[in-house]
Amino acid sequence: MDATVGALAALLNGEVLGDAELPIRKVDSLDNADAVTLSFMGGGTKLRALDACRAGAILVGSGRIDDLTPELRERFTFLVVEDALDAFLLILQRERPPRPRANIGVSPQAIVAESATIGERTNIHPGATIGEDVVIGCDCEILSGAVIGDGCRIGDHSTLHPRVVLYPDVELGERVILHAGVVVGADGYGYRLRDGRFEKIPQLGSVRIENDVEIGANATIDRGMIGPTVIGEGTKLDNLIMVAHNCQIGKHNVFASQVGLAGSTSTGDYVRIGGQTGIADHLRIGSNVALAASSAIHKDVPDGETWAGYPARPVEESFRILMAQGKLPEMRTRLRDLEKQVKRLSAELKRTPDSEAA
Amino acid sequence: MDATVGALAALLNGEVLGDAELPIRKVDSLDNADAVTLSFMGGGTKLRALDACRAGAILVGSGRIDDLTPELRERFTFLVVEDALDAFLLILQRERPPRPRANIGVSPQAIVAESATIGERTNIHPGATIGEDVVIGCDCEILSGAVIGDGCRIGDHSTLHPRVVLYPDVELGERVILHAGVVVGADGYGYRLRDGRFEKIPQLGSVRIENDVEIGANATIDRGMIGPTVIGEGTKLDNLIMVAHNCQIGKHNVFASQVGLAGSTSTGDYVRIGGQTGIADHLRIGSNVALAASSAIHKDVPDGETWAGYPARPVEESFRILMAQGKLPEMRTRLRDLEKQVKRLSAELKRTPDSEAA
Amino acid sequence: MDATVGALAALLNGEVLGDAELPIRKVDSLDNADAVTLSFMGGGTKLRALDACRAGAILVGSGRIDDLTPELRERFTFLVVEDALDAFLLILQRERPPRPRANIGVSPQAIVAESATIGERTNIHPGATIGEDVVIGCDCEILSGAVIGDGCRIGDHSTLHPRVVLYPDVELGERVILHAGVVVGADGYGYRLRDGRFEKIPQLGSVRIENDVEIGANATIDRGMIGPTVIGEGTKLDNLIMVAHNCQIGKHNVFASQVGLAGSTSTGDYVRIGGQTGIADHLRIGSNVALAASSAIHKDVPDGETWAGYPARPVEESFRILMAQGKLPEMRTRLRDLEKQVKRLSAELKRTPDSEAA
Repeated sequence: MDATVGALAALLNGEVLGDAELPIRKVDSLDNADAVTLSFMGGGTKLRALDACRAGAILVGSGRIDDLTPELRERFTFLVVEDALDAFLLILQRERPPRPRANIGVSPQAIVAESATIGERTNIHPGATIGEDVVIGCDCEILSGAVIGDGCRIGDHSTLHPRVVLYPDVELGERVILHAGVVVGADGYGYRLRDGRFEKIPQLGSVRIENDVEIGANATIDRGMIGPTVIGEGTKLDNLIMVAHNCQIGKHNVFASQVGLAGSTSTGDYVRIGGQTGIADHLRIGSNVALAASSAIHKDVPDGETWAGYPARPVEESFRILMAQGKLPEMRTRLRDLEKQVKRLSAELKRTPDSEAA
Repeated sequence: MDATVGALAALLNGEVLGDAELPIRKVDSLDNADAVTLSFMGGGTKLRALDACRAGAILVGSGRIDDLTPELRERFTFLVVEDALDAFLLILQRERPPRPRANIGVSPQAIVAESATIGERTNIHPGATIGEDVVIGCDCEILSGAVIGDGCRIGDHSTLHPRVVLYPDVELGERVILHAGVVVGADGYGYRLRDGRFEKIPQLGSVRIENDVEIGANATIDRGMIGPTVIGEGTKLDNLIMVAHNCQIGKHNVFASQVGLAGSTSTGDYVRIGGQTGIADHLRIGSNVALAASSAIHKDVPDGETWAGYPARPVEESFRILMAQGKLPEMRTRLRDLEKQVKRLSAELKRTPDSEAA
Repeated sequence: MDATVGALAALLNGEVLGDAELPIRKVDSLDNADAVTLSFMGGGTKLRALDACRAGAILVGSGRIDDLTPELRERFTFLVVEDALDAFLLILQRERPPRPRANIGVSPQAIVAESATIGERTNIHPGATIGEDVVIGCDCEILSGAVIGDGCRIGDHSTLHPRVVLYPDVELGERVILHAGVVVGADGYGYRLRDGRFEKIPQLGSVRIENDVEIGANATIDRGMIGPTVIGEGTKLDNLIMVAHNCQIGKHNVFASQVGLAGSTSTGDYVRIGGQTGIADHLRIGSNVALAASSAIHKDVPDGETWAGYPARPVEESFRILMAQGKLPEMRTRLRDLEKQVKRLSAELKRTPDSEAA
């Protein structure tokens, strides 16, 4: 890269606060920046991230202009644009172009059943395994070590990263991305106790993953017992998430990492769940619900509500409880004081003639 | 499928509430049912699951007969049998027969050490790797991408799904099922701080998994430091569970997903643990113990008890605390009111002559 | 093994409490010991672990000499040394010598890009996949099923266990150990909502793992959005841990299993985190911080502090709150009693003439 802040401002339709002649040689994060780096401050970046930053110039959205104190303007040149993320990605992707897509087709080092159907321009990388009767669409990437069970169907433009496992008869829509180590369609956790032993209940349903779903590394989605477990269109699941059998996840949900849903629970659309939150079985989480991180959900949550806590409650209620919890030791002391005072009052009152007469 | 509810009732020794002539073309879950579907209501199915259900007929156990309101009987034909799950599985397995077992033997595309011993009728699928001195029993399935370390022993009729990893010298009993991505025998997490650096403590024990154990996708069972980590006979572990080094898990335990046990903890027999619960190290969990989901266990739990909460306590105690927590903000208000009243009373009492004399 | 306790004491420079002539045939854990076994009691071993122990002799550190009651000395012969772990490992490693290192080089059954550079004495095991432009140092072990993406760099003496996945352009230092199923460099979880759909934000950073890091089975470390996610030198992460994009983990940290860190959080050096603890995004955890297991961290934690709880607070504060929580039901009763007493007192006071006059 060989530019000036001013030239980049012209390209991005932005405004320079500082030295427009400053040379820019690379783009990088605030932590990794030096004097010839253009770096980036997002909407969520805390100002303290600039404390030890040595960037020459920082791209920032016009929405944060009030944060740019005189002292900061002294230290950095700012390039202010309307949408800082868009602008930064434009530069970053130009600086770090993706490797050209490999033109592999079906690798001779892949293991592909003769009955499988592979679409045009799809790459089956060396070391991938494709079972009987599998149908894979066009423009897909099936990376090394992925194992696709018999009878699976994969829509166009999907990517299965290394070591993804699909058990038999799983269905993926188009533009689905499954990250490394994801397991889709393992048996749901169903047993019944008979004569002192847990007997396996066959899990004869499957999994349907709709268009534009992305699932993070080492997450697991179990197959249904009778019908399919469903991950709705556009939903994004982070790493190490567990979705148990028979769950019906709605469209455009976003779940952070290590979230767990027990069996047969459903969610509406646009549900957001923070990391590590657990949801009990057979519950209904409404549309547009937000659940805070580290919560434990034991009840249905109605549409549009935000819940938090252990056990989870509507967030205002939960917040009041958490605030009061912080005061608990003090409350204990105050309660003890009150008891003493009341005892003393009571004794004193007993000593007043009328009271004793009562 | 081409039957009537009446014909199925005859087959299943059941009773029809409704239209015995209703044609049945398929079996499916309540969510996926249409007018010619036989669906299924289990012991745990909530009645609201029928709200939007369009099934023609529903198989149900006689134990739920009181739930079948006149309105429900109006909407659906019910097929009532003694054991609904048994009956439904009979039909479902007939409708969805498993693929015939492949007759692969040792695939030429598998990587098998010459010193390994493979039992009769065992399939080593393409892309599986079998180390030196491994002994695998009869009628096993070792699926693609599984990696079996040197010296492992696997009992008859066991199934290792794709990408299971056994580190060296792990022992599996008979009829063990390990789902995709399970890792057994990785080094326990043992270090000691020396001169400012954590030095690895060699983990020279192993793992013993007894007969009829099933372990869910991407779960991890670490090897012991000296002796074996043990998973007792008949125990079923769900996905993404962590069992640390030296744990001794009893027989017929059932742990839901994302449970974590720290090192050297033991459980008795018939222990049930809800999802995401964590158990500290060196604890003893007695037999027939139940631990609620999302609990944090910091103490031993005696035989037969049910614990819950954060930190966990006996469930009645924990429940009383949780109930009281819900009242905390109100309690704060009441405490403040009381303080005011007592202050006022105190002032008033001071003004009574006798009190002042006291 | 064919020794006596006395002979071992001479070897280990230890003292025998009991029968120095006792024959020792093997070494094993307390659970697995018999009359001719030398077993081991560490600094953290609880005395009750000896209740059902049948070991002939037990190696123990001099620091625990006061725990060895007359009754225990009656039951066991003790071999007392200064550093019991060191001494036991010496014996154990002699009894269980590791398998000799395989001399494989680049296996013809591995899939290795021509542009990859592999150091001397490095083993690329059968079924491993090495991408374009990868550089691997000397004396490394890349085990079966590992998938190394294009452009990765791996330092000398590193071990990648079966099925480790490195996405492209990940950097590992020297003596790094990644256990089976670890995924490094998957896309960070970044989206933005546009016109009702979550649009993927490209994750163009990478991951840098420094020297002497060890990461447990099935853990996941996501790549940064712009710069690298960093795991600092000497840090040890347990199984099933999640480190989100842009995190900067310091040196010599130890995190127990199932811990989760949300995006852009940093830790200092020598941070210890107990199992299942979750940390929110964009936080700073100072050096020498300890966070208890099962905690939920929503705030920065200053250097040197120990925090615990849900939500986490400094441990003394948290402990007082937890203690008070245990008293909550009792506090409710006491509050109710007080209210009654105050009401009665108030009524009584009203009936005293002076009070009524007031």
